[in-house]
Amino acid sequence: MLALKTVSEFIDNVASDSPAPGGGSVAALAGALGAALTAMVCHLTIGKKKYEDVQTEMIGLLGQADELKARLIILMDQDTEAFNRVMEAFGMPRSTDAEKEKRSTAIQEATKQATLVPLEVMKLAERALTLAKSAAEKGNVNSISDAGVAGVMLKAACEGAALNVRINLATLKDGRFVSETRALLDAIATNVEVLSDGLRKRVETVLS
Amino acid sequence: MLALKTVSEFIDNVASDSPAPGGGSVAALAGALGAALTAMVCHLTIGKKKYEDVQTEMIGLLGQADELKARLIILMDQDTEAFNRVMEAFGMPRSTDAEKEKRSTAIQEATKQATLVPLEVMKLAERALTLAKSAAEKGNVNSISDAGVAGVMLKAACEGAALNVRINLATLKDGRFVSETRALLDAIATNVEVLSDGLRKRVETVLS
Repeated sequence: MLALKTVSEFIDNVASDSPAPGGGSVAALAGALGAALTAMVCHLTIGKKKYEDVQTEMIGLLGQADELKARLIILMDQDTEAFNRVMEAFGMPRSTDAEKEKRSTAIQEATKQATLVPLEVMKLAERALTLAKSAAEKGNVNSISDAGVAGVMLKAACEGAALNVRINLATLKDGRFVSETRALLDAIATNVEVLSDGLRKRVETVLS
Repeated sequence: MLALKTVSEFIDNVASDSPAPGGGSVAALAGALGAALTAMVCHLTIGKKKYEDVQTEMIGLLGQADELKARLIILMDQDTEAFNRVMEAFGMPRSTDAEKEKRSTAIQEATKQATLVPLEVMKLAERALTLAKSAAEKGNVNSISDAGVAGVMLKAACEGAALNVRINLATLKDGRFVSETRALLDAIATNVEVLSDGLRKRVETVLS
């Protein structure tokens, strides 16, 4: 499991001449870090007299942020595995027509999976961003820069994952799957833009 | 050293009820990940016949990306240490006027240091972004999404670090230091915006 490597080892694995883990796993990690910072802001608000009105809400946000964090850590591995399955499919024999067809089908199936993993990263980053925005608006103002970095990381997670969806969509032949996935990607990207702008404005208001 | 923890432990440390490591260390990590992805794109270009014209350039970029990556990993720790020094200064005794003055001076000094660390993260992320842009423009097009995620992570590193510079600047009394640092921050942020727009356009051209 990638998350059981040390931070230093993981970074060196990314930097190496092996194409996986690459941008897809890094995007999932960015999402997990954004969810983790959101959880931290909740922790630093819970139990504080000044924030007694939002205690229940913060406990709720914390539970959700922790769940998203755990799921995004798993997606780091799933992205690398999905990439490796695509590479395996490309390595299948192609001497006969039957082999060629089998290989082509395997590539299409594996590539579909390799779009679904980053698409899930996008969905989870979008949900985490909603939590981070609430934490920035109602949580401990002393942690406002942490809530701001949470927003920045979650937007990066979404944008990075979107690039991985798109590079895989480019080789898919199932037109309906491509157009539906593209529409979903665009809808998430638009909402993430709105959420992250809102979060940034809140951070600017506190910091200025 | 934070980078010797497992990825999972580091994320859980961020998510915990301790304010450090927080957004500053996460921003430095985002920078290291962006530099690592840049290095990977260089590796996947070096030795490829199709890219023989840019071999020397890619080897040069790789060396620089690896250096920035190593430095950004160190800054993950320096940010957390700088934050802890500020907290220690706040914990100093303040019963007498002499103690109050000593404490106040210590807070100011520690806070200055806590602006310099994320400011260095911004400078290194800006340099790494220049490398990532070159890698996106001249490196292996099969790795274009990785170059794109490198750009996204380095921009996030810069924006996240900027929030940490600003929250610390807010409590500093040295007007000249504040205005000079603010001007430097603005200049880096503007350049990072330009670089990352350029990189994104290149990625869009390849992906569309």
